[in-house]
Amino acid sequence: MSEPISGILTPNITPVDQQGRVDEDTLRAYVDWLIEKGVDGLYPNGSTGEFVRFTPEERRRIVQVVTDQTAGRVPILAGAAEANTKETIDACEAYGAMGVRAVAIVAPFYYRLSDQGVYAYFREIADTVSVDVTLYNIPLFASPISVDTVVRLASECPRVVGIKDSSGDLPNMMRMISQIRPIREDFSFLTGWDAALVPMLVAGANGGTNATSGVVPELTRAIHRTVVAGDIKQAMKLQYQLLPLFDAMISIGEFPEGFRAGARSRGWDLGPGRVPLSEQQKSAVANAQRQIDALLGEYADSPRDTIAVGNIEKIVAQVVSQLRVQS
Amino acid sequence: MSEPISGILTPNITPVDQQGRVDEDTLRAYVDWLIEKGVDGLYPNGSTGEFVRFTPEERRRIVQVVTDQTAGRVPILAGAAEANTKETIDACEAYGAMGVRAVAIVAPFYYRLSDQGVYAYFREIADTVSVDVTLYNIPLFASPISVDTVVRLASECPRVVGIKDSSGDLPNMMRMISQIRPIREDFSFLTGWDAALVPMLVAGANGGTNATSGVVPELTRAIHRTVVAGDIKQAMKLQYQLLPLFDAMISIGEFPEGFRAGARSRGWDLGPGRVPLSEQQKSAVANAQRQIDALLGEYADSPRDTIAVGNIEKIVAQVVSQLRVQS
Amino acid sequence: MSEPISGILTPNITPVDQQGRVDEDTLRAYVDWLIEKGVDGLYPNGSTGEFVRFTPEERRRIVQVVTDQTAGRVPILAGAAEANTKETIDACEAYGAMGVRAVAIVAPFYYRLSDQGVYAYFREIADTVSVDVTLYNIPLFASPISVDTVVRLASECPRVVGIKDSSGDLPNMMRMISQIRPIREDFSFLTGWDAALVPMLVAGANGGTNATSGVVPELTRAIHRTVVAGDIKQAMKLQYQLLPLFDAMISIGEFPEGFRAGARSRGWDLGPGRVPLSEQQKSAVANAQRQIDALLGEYADSPRDTIAVGNIEKIVAQVVSQLRVQS
Amino acid sequence: MSEPISGILTPNITPVDQQGRVDEDTLRAYVDWLIEKGVDGLYPNGSTGEFVRFTPEERRRIVQVVTDQTAGRVPILAGAAEANTKETIDACEAYGAMGVRAVAIVAPFYYRLSDQGVYAYFREIADTVSVDVTLYNIPLFASPISVDTVVRLASECPRVVGIKDSSGDLPNMMRMISQIRPIREDFSFLTGWDAALVPMLVAGANGGTNATSGVVPELTRAIHRTVVAGDIKQAMKLQYQLLPLFDAMISIGEFPEGFRAGARSRGWDLGPGRVPLSEQQKSAVANAQRQIDALLGEYADSPRDTIAVGNIEKIVAQVVSQLRVQS
Repeated sequence: MSEPISGILTPNITPVDQQGRVDEDTLRAYVDWLIEKGVDGLYPNGSTGEFVRFTPEERRRIVQVVTDQTAGRVPILAGAAEANTKETIDACEAYGAMGVRAVAIVAPFYYRLSDQGVYAYFREIADTVSVDVTLYNIPLFASPISVDTVVRLASECPRVVGIKDSSGDLPNMMRMISQIRPIREDFSFLTGWDAALVPMLVAGANGGTNATSGVVPELTRAIHRTVVAGDIKQAMKLQYQLLPLFDAMISIGEFPEGFRAGARSRGWDLGPGRVPLSEQQKSAVANAQRQIDALLGEYADSPRDTIAVGNIEKIVAQVVSQLRVQS
Repeated sequence: MSEPISGILTPNITPVDQQGRVDEDTLRAYVDWLIEKGVDGLYPNGSTGEFVRFTPEERRRIVQVVTDQTAGRVPILAGAAEANTKETIDACEAYGAMGVRAVAIVAPFYYRLSDQGVYAYFREIADTVSVDVTLYNIPLFASPISVDTVVRLASECPRVVGIKDSSGDLPNMMRMISQIRPIREDFSFLTGWDAALVPMLVAGANGGTNATSGVVPELTRAIHRTVVAGDIKQAMKLQYQLLPLFDAMISIGEFPEGFRAGARSRGWDLGPGRVPLSEQQKSAVANAQRQIDALLGEYADSPRDTIAVGNIEKIVAQVVSQLRVQS
Repeated sequence: MSEPISGILTPNITPVDQQGRVDEDTLRAYVDWLIEKGVDGLYPNGSTGEFVRFTPEERRRIVQVVTDQTAGRVPILAGAAEANTKETIDACEAYGAMGVRAVAIVAPFYYRLSDQGVYAYFREIADTVSVDVTLYNIPLFASPISVDTVVRLASECPRVVGIKDSSGDLPNMMRMISQIRPIREDFSFLTGWDAALVPMLVAGANGGTNATSGVVPELTRAIHRTVVAGDIKQAMKLQYQLLPLFDAMISIGEFPEGFRAGARSRGWDLGPGRVPLSEQQKSAVANAQRQIDALLGEYADSPRDTIAVGNIEKIVAQVVSQLRVQS
Repeated sequence: MSEPISGILTPNITPVDQQGRVDEDTLRAYVDWLIEKGVDGLYPNGSTGEFVRFTPEERRRIVQVVTDQTAGRVPILAGAAEANTKETIDACEAYGAMGVRAVAIVAPFYYRLSDQGVYAYFREIADTVSVDVTLYNIPLFASPISVDTVVRLASECPRVVGIKDSSGDLPNMMRMISQIRPIREDFSFLTGWDAALVPMLVAGANGGTNATSGVVPELTRAIHRTVVAGDIKQAMKLQYQLLPLFDAMISIGEFPEGFRAGARSRGWDLGPGRVPLSEQQKSAVANAQRQIDALLGEYADSPRDTIAVGNIEKIVAQVVSQLRVQS
């Protein structure tokens, strides 16, 4: 039985060029930077990657480029939701053939399906595909996947190997962990709610798929490693650093514009995005850029450098040894 | 200046065959039946047509088939929402070239856009396309289009010629009518909330795009004609007939399964749909079929006959003459 | 069997003096004015009367004063919700002894009770009291009373003689009417949603309890009479006059400050209210006063005059005779 | 400057006798038991105490009895919300004179006030009273108190010494702590959301006012002490014990029936409650009693014994010493 997916996986923004096309060169460079900064995996075609704003062909190409560039350095979780069950299954198989660790499938959106409908959808996919599947629960945007449905799918479907939960509902995360972990050691619990990353990890989550990790991968990595090392006090300090960053980036323009602005502070021009902004919004984003630069502080001062991972390990090691001394 | 779009337009279910492909033959026959039954227009790729569950290519083919089969007998409102602004604009132009009366564009979904973002999206489309555009507000499924945004777009964009509102918010409908009608005689107000069709028409709406009209086109036509004739008392009686039908069909399985069941009562096998149902849901739909057959009563007794329009006109004429006598 | 409660009943604001006490003299004068302007009933201790902001003793005194001053000229519907079932029952009996036509009881608030709990609450009251009871559904503020619960209570409890619904849900109003009217001719359906008063009356409601009737009783009376006379077109014109007034008054400060401002335009100083306002809110109310004065137009020009009823009857009579001529 | 309120304060159920009167004898005995079991404070007239279902006179008597029986052994936080600002201020002063540590005031309910209105309400109270005040945010039942309003009141009003937050929103708790703690060392952050007690404490909350502490005071005390001792791993284990208990008790009948059932498992008959239950609900509660007995396990086996505190301290001490050894 394989190990559960763990650590911080980056739901990467999809760079586009001035003509609005996928900017493959920048995507490759950005993937390299993220891996060098220490992310534990990549998650193309997530909500941060604006999967719904690309065509089916573009979505495939995006996964292809990320897989190719990653070349096995880190595992890939590929967003595979398409227009209907058949199209989704086809995408799953294509991504499996490209070598992704698993696909991530959001519950059907636009229509709000009932619990029964959500179950039937995932069951049909899980019974058909030959790649591992993670469920993606984001009730703000898509049909909710209830705790009962996750437990049922985990019990019945070996192919379902995880849940990525962006609801931010910590007790629900605990309800899932307490029911599923005893029967599925390989099942992974990932949180997409950066504002509560440490509490979720403390509650037992295996990791997170966090938009902030595309901007400050050093910080989210340090958070994960510090919790694993057991220094919750220090981890909470880092969480208190992450929260205002997250709040600033989530509140600018239309999602994920603020995260694009954050990446810009790090030296990455990921393009104009695919959703038109009003004049009022454009000037709000411009103003917010300075605030984000300031919030990013030292990170913004050393954009796109590639030496951070070693430093973080050093810092975490120091933290852990200090912890031993203190207690 | 052209007349506002008016009357009852049918957001038709998209028939699929046992292999899950668009069933073009049935679609053509169904279009004929609807027109013969007296619908005032067709609306392919609406929510009832499950537009999000088809591929971009399929969506174009659907509009092509409906346009071709209709051959100008009634106007067509074509759902044109695609993955992003550019793709949507391309679809608009394609449908314009096919001869549709207008396109209908739902606000961006999955992400919930702000008022500013919704405005920017429609503004960019309206400034670019060469076909008339109706806005489609369905806050249950997509980003809401506020009253202020509709008024602003109506004021600034000659290409925006109508709003199709499925919110069911009658005071909001009145707020839009009171602000827009004085400046845009050609602007059309259509309701998608069948449960309040008569009140919306009484409040001044030009018509409706109603899922029930795909099942009982005689009844929705009679409602519209009776309101226009001024016999509100009789229209409300018909509304009291429509409501339990609507309630029964909206509450079965996943939308629009109940309307598919309704069509089945009329003799139309529109196929299995594209969303998988659980075993429990399948048996619920089967049980509900009998209830819907019963509710449809006389309509179910004469499925797929094609003589109704004349009869309705006769009934409406009788109603109007009785009204004159009484008063 | 008694006639159902019908027409427009005013949920009157409770005047307070500068010391914050109930201003009984003003209350008596305001009651006289409302009756002279033609309201069909009074409804002390409603939401507009801020019942929750008064003590149990004050609430009783308010009903006593209104009953005494009314002296049988119009029926009274007395808000009787208290802290618990026993206290509510005591208030019901007290108000019954004062001669009110019925009490109105909102579902328990603060806690959101389940359907079962709401049913049990009303059932216990209805089985105990010796006064007629109307249910008061206002899901924005209190536990919702579902359509099924209203139907069940209407079927089982002769004492339950009506529903006052402030949800604004027109199809639900129709669902209740279609199930209850066939079995309870004495049951009254009243709407508290002024923004859709005409559509509700057209759908079959017997009347309304509308906050706007405390400001423009002439207009709400004209609306009711015009619908009863069958001139829906003219009634909708009046509804289009009522809507901006309602919108303006509902959006100022905290409810019901805007309606207090409306009364001020008519010459009534009903006092400062019992909810503190911030400095920012106070200046917003002051600014809005001018807008409301302007919206009230001719009504504001003749504040507190007492000749309107006859004029309205004359206008309605004209309308009806014109209608006959036209058709 | 005084220390912030901290630890676990019990929002105690208000016992009533078979006639529905406050059962003062049982209340006194229950207070003794809670203190002996180690709760850090008492919170009469909270939501669990059903404050809205008692009369103003009863509410005062309840605080009087609890204060008298406690006799200074633990601090008391007294729910003081009344019908309006003046009545609330009077209750505050009365409770201050009785010697409570602070009052707790929920934002106005029934009506949903704006941010401005909520601010004005608390500001007027805080400027007037001579007792410390904690804000009580429970957006499910009452007007929400926004993070900005809490920060503003903490900055401007020395009398405001804490926030009791039952929203369960962990990031909001962090947002309040990060802005207020630097300027107000005496300000207390208490959580009322038992399902996330440990994460809230880990994030920096000073304690909790938790309904479960009225049933398993040993467990909530152990949770608080274990977090303070720094053994987060063990604390999370206890949280995983608390969660199913909380889930079971919150889901039975109308709140707080499930907690009454929990107390019954511990040997406490706190009476029938003040909200009527339907026959269906009564049998559901009876069935659930067995489940709750089972969940309470060893606690249910030793009801109403009074030796637990020493044992917990022993367990916590063991935990802490093991922690030191391990690291």
